[in-house]
Amino acid sequence: MMFESAELGHKIDKASYDQQVPALREALLTAQMDLAAAGKYPVIVIVAGLDGAGRGETVNLLNKWMDARFIRTHGMGEPSAEERERPMMWRFWRVLPPKGRIGLFLGSWYTWPILDRVAGRTKEAELEQTLEQTRRFEKMLTDEGVILVKFWLHLSKDKQKKRLKLLEENPATRWQVTDRDWKRYKQYDKFRAVHEQVIRQTSTAEAPWLIVEGHDPHYRVLTVGEILLNAIRKRLDEPETPPTELHAPLPMPPIDNLDILHTLDLTQTIPDEAFEAELEKYHGKLAELTRHRKFANLSVIVVFEGNDAAGKGGAIRRIVSALDARYYEIIPIAAPSEEERAQPYLWRFWRHIPGKGRLTIFDRSWYGRVLVERVEGFCSKLHWMRAYNEINDFEAQLTDNGVVLIKFWLAISKDEQLTRFQAREATGFKHFKITPEDWRNREKWDEYEHAVCDMVDRTSCDNAPWTLVEANDKNFARIKILKTLCKRIEKAMEME
Amino acid sequence: MMFESAELGHKIDKASYDQQVPALREALLTAQMDLAAAGKYPVIVIVAGLDGAGRGETVNLLNKWMDARFIRTHGMGEPSAEERERPMMWRFWRVLPPKGRIGLFLGSWYTWPILDRVAGRTKEAELEQTLEQTRRFEKMLTDEGVILVKFWLHLSKDKQKKRLKLLEENPATRWQVTDRDWKRYKQYDKFRAVHEQVIRQTSTAEAPWLIVEGHDPHYRVLTVGEILLNAIRKRLDEPETPPTELHAPLPMPPIDNLDILHTLDLTQTIPDEAFEAELEKYHGKLAELTRHRKFANLSVIVVFEGNDAAGKGGAIRRIVSALDARYYEIIPIAAPSEEERAQPYLWRFWRHIPGKGRLTIFDRSWYGRVLVERVEGFCSKLHWMRAYNEINDFEAQLTDNGVVLIKFWLAISKDEQLTRFQAREATGFKHFKITPEDWRNREKWDEYEHAVCDMVDRTSCDNAPWTLVEANDKNFARIKILKTLCKRIEKAMEME
Repeated sequence: MMFESAELGHKIDKASYDQQVPALREALLTAQMDLAAAGKYPVIVIVAGLDGAGRGETVNLLNKWMDARFIRTHGMGEPSAEERERPMMWRFWRVLPPKGRIGLFLGSWYTWPILDRVAGRTKEAELEQTLEQTRRFEKMLTDEGVILVKFWLHLSKDKQKKRLKLLEENPATRWQVTDRDWKRYKQYDKFRAVHEQVIRQTSTAEAPWLIVEGHDPHYRVLTVGEILLNAIRKRLDEPETPPTELHAPLPMPPIDNLDILHTLDLTQTIPDEAFEAELEKYHGKLAELTRHRKFANLSVIVVFEGNDAAGKGGAIRRIVSALDARYYEIIPIAAPSEEERAQPYLWRFWRHIPGKGRLTIFDRSWYGRVLVERVEGFCSKLHWMRAYNEINDFEAQLTDNGVVLIKFWLAISKDEQLTRFQAREATGFKHFKITPEDWRNREKWDEYEHAVCDMVDRTSCDNAPWTLVEANDKNFARIKILKTLCKRIEKAMEME
Repeated sequence: MMFESAELGHKIDKASYDQQVPALREALLTAQMDLAAAGKYPVIVIVAGLDGAGRGETVNLLNKWMDARFIRTHGMGEPSAEERERPMMWRFWRVLPPKGRIGLFLGSWYTWPILDRVAGRTKEAELEQTLEQTRRFEKMLTDEGVILVKFWLHLSKDKQKKRLKLLEENPATRWQVTDRDWKRYKQYDKFRAVHEQVIRQTSTAEAPWLIVEGHDPHYRVLTVGEILLNAIRKRLDEPETPPTELHAPLPMPPIDNLDILHTLDLTQTIPDEAFEAELEKYHGKLAELTRHRKFANLSVIVVFEGNDAAGKGGAIRRIVSALDARYYEIIPIAAPSEEERAQPYLWRFWRHIPGKGRLTIFDRSWYGRVLVERVEGFCSKLHWMRAYNEINDFEAQLTDNGVVLIKFWLAISKDEQLTRFQAREATGFKHFKITPEDWRNREKWDEYEHAVCDMVDRTSCDNAPWTLVEANDKNFARIKILKTLCKRIEKAMEME
């Protein structure tokens, strides 16, 4: 019944069509200019549906009608080699439109799950899981201000046959119809059942499917155009409402002041001679592991977070000195660029996800949201509380795709930090490393500590555990880090 | 790692405990009074976690500390016979606290899914599905203003053993420890893994889990008390924020004005003699079906919606005249009662879900939200757009539990409605059936029509399809309804 309204034989005659199009085009162009001028919302348009229902023509016409400078079309056919090496969603993240722009998706995150299910390559429960992830992904998009418009172009079985025949009869369009289309037509009922499930499970208040009958091009295009226009206009013209307040009970610091950071034994040290020997040992090991033929099938991501002056930079240098420069990358995370601010929060991290046989080190990371942004009030409670789930979902996508994800928290004591700050101020060439901001952060030591404990509690999972590193002694910290790295990579190779 | 912070050996000494308790108790009592006085939010407290972690003691103490008039405790052990006949969530819906009250849940919607998974009665994917439903259920609760506080009492393996031994050694508490507890202790690692999955998947921004180490009673109870106090106070003291605006693209009426209601052939009639014969036939059939031994395993729910004056009442009378009065119930849905207004929207329907061997007819239903409430603006766009999913989830729970759900929309033409309104006004004893409200609704005919089409598009699924009934001719409508009823019940019995 879900599709019944889109099987009624909707139609607009040519005269009314010709009469309505100019005004619609003008309104769409104006909306597009206003959208770009506002620079606040990206627009994602998904044009999904049945073969022969006019998806391609619809996208082409929208392109023709609108200003090409502010719109990009994504066919999203077979994934490239580069894309196949990464989680399925990576290819979509990399082409998300920035604020003020429109992205038209002919293929989408729905395409392959549907084809896989109809072909029997996946089971019902797997499809359901994928759709659930899709729901969360789209919720994140709309939470981040994306105007998400999902069109589903539908045809009755009878009309699909007619459309395919019509296209075949016309020499100008014959090439559009392939054997694959006829093969899929024979599976119409199967497709329809899967489509129903997809639509039912992913039509939400925030991202509803808009089902449009595809048979009559005039009706189809006018309907799509009107809905798109409305969606953009509505958002631009409606007053901004303040973000919702989160009323949920928040985690409290433990009433006895005992937390995981307090249980670390920060007095552990490794004397210099022992250190050199250990360093050589684990360097050798790491070099060997990363040159092993099995490493070519792995992606490794290492995340460094820690107190200011805990020695992240030094530790990172000790890792990479064992690596082949062609196969690793260090991503320092500072304030986001303009380009990055025009995208959902996780975009700037997704873009650096490595392919196979590569290792990427994040010097600070996506955890900024639940650390500095939380403590400094740069984002609302709702945002950082949501971030725990968004991060877990993100990391699960990585590790499900075979990424080895290693996360370090470098912990030093408050006293040790003071010593290091003072030393930096006293040493000319290290002076740049200490700023008034560091001193300000230090005043919020307890709040940061609480945020760190929450972070570890809420994001340390089997697939992506945190390793807490006692870093008062740099030797000790560096060896523990190298040891952990080797162990995790070795284990992943054994499971290969 | 998720539980690491709750395995540190948290402790509060007796002196500090004794010192802190009086102030906490007083603050909790005050919060409870303020909560009751405000009458705006229900509080649901879930106390879940490991055996021996002190769940029972915690609940007992909270009960002792607070005002018994405004708090109710729910053990939720084995379901009763009445509960077993209905969907799993029914037993929770029936005891949800109303606004201003607190419900303490010792067992919850988490208990059985965890036990089933650990015992291997369900697979990982099934647990995941259940947890996903839980997420949505809890989202609905918090969207409806519920203050949801979820405590997870945890113990390390070592501490669990110690606690059980300690309880056993003390003659006063020995009875608390059973063989089952020791059996479960042996499965500690299995439980822990499942618990991690549960917490990870159901800890959301709106309904986070609060993990508390259970070993030391002072620490445990003070922590639980403080968090609960905070959660209630925060909600009462924080200013109300306006509800979020829904920016999503909304479904539009079709631009060619062709909708499913227009495709109905309202001229269909059945002459009186033929009607009497058919009526007798289907009455006999229905009587036979509902007296069949297989009917004892079915629950049937029939929903009647339709235009004003479409003849719902008459049709319902024609059904029940074939039924045994002991086995059916008619639920007329009008404005909600005070008691019902103090609960989430679907509560007043859940309470009438029939047991096995019973048939319940709803004269109007939960669809009010996407019909009259939508058109008249009684609820926000966000609420009615969300309602489609909430209703689909609700109905899926019914049909998954073997309920036969039959939904009728009785459609008459605008002209026919006018004729019937005028006839009612002219006939003395029918005069009460026509009100100024009916005339007002009639003015919004087109908006209602659009809402009906959206409703059918978005809530007609294989498990719970809508049947549109051409009702200009009452004979025709009544026979179509009886026929559909018989067919659906017959089909369900065949599948038994």
